[in-house]
Amino acid sequence: MRAVDLIAKKRAGEVLTDEEINSLIQGYVANDVPDYQMAAFLMAVCFSGMNAQETAGLTIAMLQSGDVVDLSDIPGVKVDKHSTGGVGDTTTLAVGPMVAACGGKVAKMSGRGLGHTGGTLDKLESIPGLIIELPLEQFKQQVREISLAIVGQTGNLVPADKKLYALRDVTSTVNSLPLIASSIMSKKLASGADAIVLDVKTGSGAFAETLEQAKALASTMVDIGRRLGKKVVAIITDMNQPLGLAVGNALEVREAIELLSGKLSSGDPLYEVCMLLAGKMLLLSGQAGSETEARAKLVKSIESGAALAKFREMVAAQGGDFTYIDSVKINELCAVKRHIPVFLPYSGHVQRIDAQKVGLAAQLIGAGRSKKDDAIDPAVGLVMHKRLGEPVSPQEPVCTLYVNDDLNADAAIALLTQGIEIEHRAQRMVYAVLD
Amino acid sequence: MRAVDLIAKKRAGEVLTDEEINSLIQGYVANDVPDYQMAAFLMAVCFSGMNAQETAGLTIAMLQSGDVVDLSDIPGVKVDKHSTGGVGDTTTLAVGPMVAACGGKVAKMSGRGLGHTGGTLDKLESIPGLIIELPLEQFKQQVREISLAIVGQTGNLVPADKKLYALRDVTSTVNSLPLIASSIMSKKLASGADAIVLDVKTGSGAFAETLEQAKALASTMVDIGRRLGKKVVAIITDMNQPLGLAVGNALEVREAIELLSGKLSSGDPLYEVCMLLAGKMLLLSGQAGSETEARAKLVKSIESGAALAKFREMVAAQGGDFTYIDSVKINELCAVKRHIPVFLPYSGHVQRIDAQKVGLAAQLIGAGRSKKDDAIDPAVGLVMHKRLGEPVSPQEPVCTLYVNDDLNADAAIALLTQGIEIEHRAQRMVYAVLD
Repeated sequence: MRAVDLIAKKRAGEVLTDEEINSLIQGYVANDVPDYQMAAFLMAVCFSGMNAQETAGLTIAMLQSGDVVDLSDIPGVKVDKHSTGGVGDTTTLAVGPMVAACGGKVAKMSGRGLGHTGGTLDKLESIPGLIIELPLEQFKQQVREISLAIVGQTGNLVPADKKLYALRDVTSTVNSLPLIASSIMSKKLASGADAIVLDVKTGSGAFAETLEQAKALASTMVDIGRRLGKKVVAIITDMNQPLGLAVGNALEVREAIELLSGKLSSGDPLYEVCMLLAGKMLLLSGQAGSETEARAKLVKSIESGAALAKFREMVAAQGGDFTYIDSVKINELCAVKRHIPVFLPYSGHVQRIDAQKVGLAAQLIGAGRSKKDDAIDPAVGLVMHKRLGEPVSPQEPVCTLYVNDDLNADAAIALLTQGIEIEHRAQRMVYAVLD
Repeated sequence: MRAVDLIAKKRAGEVLTDEEINSLIQGYVANDVPDYQMAAFLMAVCFSGMNAQETAGLTIAMLQSGDVVDLSDIPGVKVDKHSTGGVGDTTTLAVGPMVAACGGKVAKMSGRGLGHTGGTLDKLESIPGLIIELPLEQFKQQVREISLAIVGQTGNLVPADKKLYALRDVTSTVNSLPLIASSIMSKKLASGADAIVLDVKTGSGAFAETLEQAKALASTMVDIGRRLGKKVVAIITDMNQPLGLAVGNALEVREAIELLSGKLSSGDPLYEVCMLLAGKMLLLSGQAGSETEARAKLVKSIESGAALAKFREMVAAQGGDFTYIDSVKINELCAVKRHIPVFLPYSGHVQRIDAQKVGLAAQLIGAGRSKKDDAIDPAVGLVMHKRLGEPVSPQEPVCTLYVNDDLNADAAIALLTQGIEIEHRAQRMVYAVLD
């Protein structure tokens, strides 16, 4: 099977067999297929696409390129969640403790942030002492004992994805449904959970800008997971504004603590998405029989303090200083040299928030990375004060920047004022003059 | 200007500027743009195409990657021709001497054959002693003195094309109109002629299988040449059967000598295509005012022996044994161990000849190369006895193989019997029986 013939077949829009896809992927990982042939193949996939069978075949081929974590010796249904990446998306830090407090087993391997999207590991590492690199046995032991662990990838999981992702990044082949779906699902499937809840974002801060794209991505990923015998559910959520109000690492931990402390209420977007995700996770875990029952248990876990206690327990188990998991003490981790309120010169209602620009503004002042090795500052970021549709005037800040270094603060403000639009009318002092 | 952004732009179907294309090509030649980025770009071009301005920009960028031959110190219009590659296409060997005998200046750089298509240099090298690697000054001196030289590429012409072609070959990106047109035209423009006649083949043995594809390729190449201030004319000719009857190196030299000796007559496809190409070359050279005048001069150059004498003169100037340029003596170069006549078991008329299969049959028995470094046997090949539409019976061979080594002869015969179709009716001995 020659790589050039498989490229030609995909270029011609034909369907590849599982065997053909596997030969290409294993050849690539073994360095028998060079980068330039894989780059041509990936670009052909961007144009010709892949059907459901091919996408599943690609996922399995990637999965088989490395180790697969075996969680079968942990009793019960191990449940995982994954978000396709958003801004102000702090769900894992709230949902993990809530589900574990209600009897679910949450064994989660997370990633770091890149570009305008944050990463759960970076947020957790803003808690002093907390370790995210646990050996596999310790990770499993923690799930057995306290039903909750959130760590970085352990072992040699999906090396094909690492190699392919690096190539896609420099050849403009990131944005392709089968490539995105197989990348996400191969990693989820390799980390060993029995059940997976997917949160596919759509809107200005997401890969899937339209609802149609999000639905296609969601159904492709669900299909892959089910073909591999996993319980998979996907929900599609809005990313036309940051999900939470906080964008930044310690700032998002603080918002998760506020949620777990009962300070966010029904109707708040972050609260509602967390309830939905955690509810699906409880259903898949067999810990609730209906959405209503799941929600009631989750509300109770917050009111009783059990969810917050679970978060504290996890932080302690991973070596972190759990005293920070408190709605007052956490403010110490959010202390910065300067708070800069950002005003817009109009009165009106917030009509549009470009979540990507908000994420980039936070990244610019040090909350995120533009390159893999960039250092981040856990305390900096921004807090939104207004959501879509809310009234605003030139006297009220739309958000506040938390900065330690003035470098790039002006650029961040410029991005925010571009990214937030107010529907306003020129103030008319005189309506008519009748002589 | 980052390569990844230019790939993204082409992937999105946008139009690149001349500056953007040039930065990509010069970056690639300088090894700043790696093969994998260029491979992704080339595949994006295969899908998104390039408009006329981009294709010209790509050609100029490739042209500027290396040396450009300067023929301006040779008086008169220097005229070149190029064929997009065919089977039994011996035109250069006949057209060059005819045009030079009629006052044109033919300064031609040719290529070697690969796959099913023959190459002029390989044909010339079947003449003992003939050298095709001339230093540039000697090449120019020969054109000045005898108006005719046919040599291999000298100097560092279009290194971008060499590098790109090798990459296209292994990434299934050969077949793309802008990439083919820029590859051909950059080489033609780099070799310094003032006027170029293009022979675009269409049919079973050509890249452009349909007339529509051939027209698109022809008009793209003419457009590129004219944008660069050259006189360019293209003709589209049939490649639904070998152009000449001979397919092989010395065999094709023999057929060219037959043509130059007046042994082919009006109506013969090789003769007619040569007359058309040579006529256009004379018109562009200013050596004839009309097609009629050009044809009359060309016919006379054959009848007077001037064209054959010019061929002999060129062979002598390039160190070859010119005594072989004779319709009897040339047979010595075509001497092989075995002649194998190929019969088809039908009576009828020749309905279809797959020129590519005929070319591959000749290649299989040693007349051509499948890889760049393969050795070829100058004497072997085949001679067709039948053209499209001609009657044939099982008693008459449709062609004769010239072989020195029985290896692959059976495979060649199998290809020919697959590639040549006879429209036949079952012989009906009894039409009806009336009782």
